Amino acid sequence: MDEFEIIDRFFSKLGDQTSDHVLLGPGDDCAVVSVPSGWELCVSTDTLVEGVHFPLDSPGELVAHRAFSASVSDLAAMGALPHSMTGALTMPEAREPWLAAFAEALGDLSSSFNIPLIGGNLSKGPLMVTMTVMGIVRSGTALLRRGAMPGDSVYVTGEPGRAAAGLALHVAGVKSELTSAYTKPTPRLSVGERLIGIASSAIDISDGLFADLQHICQASQVGAEIEINGLPVSKEREEHAGRDQAILSALTGGDDYELCFTVPERMSTSIDRVTKETAVPITRVGRIIEGAGVSVPGVELTQPGYRHFE
Amino acid sequence: MDEFEIIDRFFSKLGDQTSDHVLLGPGDDCAVVSVPSGWELCVSTDTLVEGVHFPLDSPGELVAHRAFSASVSDLAAMGALPHSMTGALTMPEAREPWLAAFAEALGDLSSSFNIPLIGGNLSKGPLMVTMTVMGIVRSGTALLRRGAMPGDSVYVTGEPGRAAAGLALHVAGVKSELTSAYTKPTPRLSVGERLIGIASSAIDISDGLFADLQHICQASQVGAEIEINGLPVSKEREEHAGRDQAILSALTGGDDYELCFTVPERMSTSIDRVTKETAVPITRVGRIIEGAGVSVPGVELTQPGYRHFE
Repeated sequence: MDEFEIIDRFFSKLGDQTSDHVLLGPGDDCAVVSVPSGWELCVSTDTLVEGVHFPLDSPGELVAHRAFSASVSDLAAMGALPHSMTGALTMPEAREPWLAAFAEALGDLSSSFNIPLIGGNLSKGPLMVTMTVMGIVRSGTALLRRGAMPGDSVYVTGEPGRAAAGLALHVAGVKSELTSAYTKPTPRLSVGERLIGIASSAIDISDGLFADLQHICQASQVGAEIEINGLPVSKEREEHAGRDQAILSALTGGDDYELCFTVPERMSTSIDRVTKETAVPITRVGRIIEGAGVSVPGVELTQPGYRHFE
Repeated sequence: MDEFEIIDRFFSKLGDQTSDHVLLGPGDDCAVVSVPSGWELCVSTDTLVEGVHFPLDSPGELVAHRAFSASVSDLAAMGALPHSMTGALTMPEAREPWLAAFAEALGDLSSSFNIPLIGGNLSKGPLMVTMTVMGIVRSGTALLRRGAMPGDSVYVTGEPGRAAAGLALHVAGVKSELTSAYTKPTPRLSVGERLIGIASSAIDISDGLFADLQHICQASQVGAEIEINGLPVSKEREEHAGRDQAILSALTGGDDYELCFTVPERMSTSIDRVTKETAVPITRVGRIIEGAGVSVPGVELTQPGYRHFE
């Protein structure tokens, strides 16, 4: 199979998905898409490298799930509705079962989240995936990292830290409910789009709550205080590793793609409605204060989150 | 230097470039861009892998030029005006001089072609670059591969085959005017945008004229005949390798990112104007006929262009 046969066999049906936004799908020099009048386009690019972002010899399904969620999660953090995506895959050789599993999982995610694949690239090379995702927001409404104000509450979706704990179990070969938080993370699009007009700032948690809340603080020129008693701590993680470790996981574990966002006092009653409409647990974990940096009274934290080339 | 320091030091100024289309540049979860009412967005993604798409130990400047041109050339083939781009770079270690050269060249290209970098990704991994480029066209006017009709003339810009010949000389360490066709290819944006309303189909030549004209024929359900006497053949190439090899290079050499396009008889007088306005040589090399496939009377050709995983 050469590249054209692989694309035809495994990926062409992903391009068939119809959408009002997609005027020309894969197969020409470019895709052609439209953006509705009065809306803006959000764009994000993420790369996942074998052995760096996911374990060696990971199944195609895992790589598709993680590549999709890592990038689509950035749309959720802007409050965007899904629009379209491109994918660039390199692999050392054309392994059919892996490609079939990758393409099927990506196709399922593409149709269930309504994000058609509009183009991409397939080349020989080390196993890596780069996704570029696009979403739309009504003009001027995108949720930014800047915008948090002293007095705002800090919220998170789900239980951050589950994926990092799940990865450790996954690598050790232990079966657990936590592992699927790593192997099949869910981007929080349904929550993100409902936070527009409610949240004053938002980010997705890729490097851990502690590290990513710092990005909000930097961009907003404020500080934050996390209250550990309020942290949603994974019960499974607590049983496996004890309360202290579970709290540490919740603060520093990345890879979940939960959302962290801030909400002014006057909007706080709207959060219950978002939880009800989405069935996603949302927990208040702290508050924005004047100053700089994130403090967690009762816990000593130095780890700033994963950094490449350190 | 960790990834944030590298981005700050080498890439942040690329994000500073202003554009009416860019509402929010790099630094948040997504960039936010606008598409003017009455226009559509063209999107293309291309990956370049070290040792596959460019030689091992290539300088940063070469990699930036080739990554930029390979992707932006796809916008030219649609007749699009430049809009914005994202870039994903992985490299095994943070080599400062390489990064400085790469970022400077990419920055120069970004500003001279007016394509601001709106986001990207930097990770540890094998040396690879994935660019996603965006351009705009007035609604319904994009140049497609389909649309060629029997009787149309086939044209090319420049002298296809120069880059492939230049690569061979570059690898052999020979200095020649041809090498810059490989190391610094120029996307033909200025020609592409002027072909709207004139060309009936277009493609950029990445795999060689013979292979890429086949894509036009397939998409348009027509055949084509190339007249070798009309081929623009590189004089340097002819001196180095003889007339027959130079013709073969012109037919099968890829990597130039020249444009190949078809023009109906009634529009053919417009081509002189495009040449005058852009100072890019444009040559008639053949014609579209009924049938299928590309024939080159007088030359036997089997090579279909480079294919990964073959």
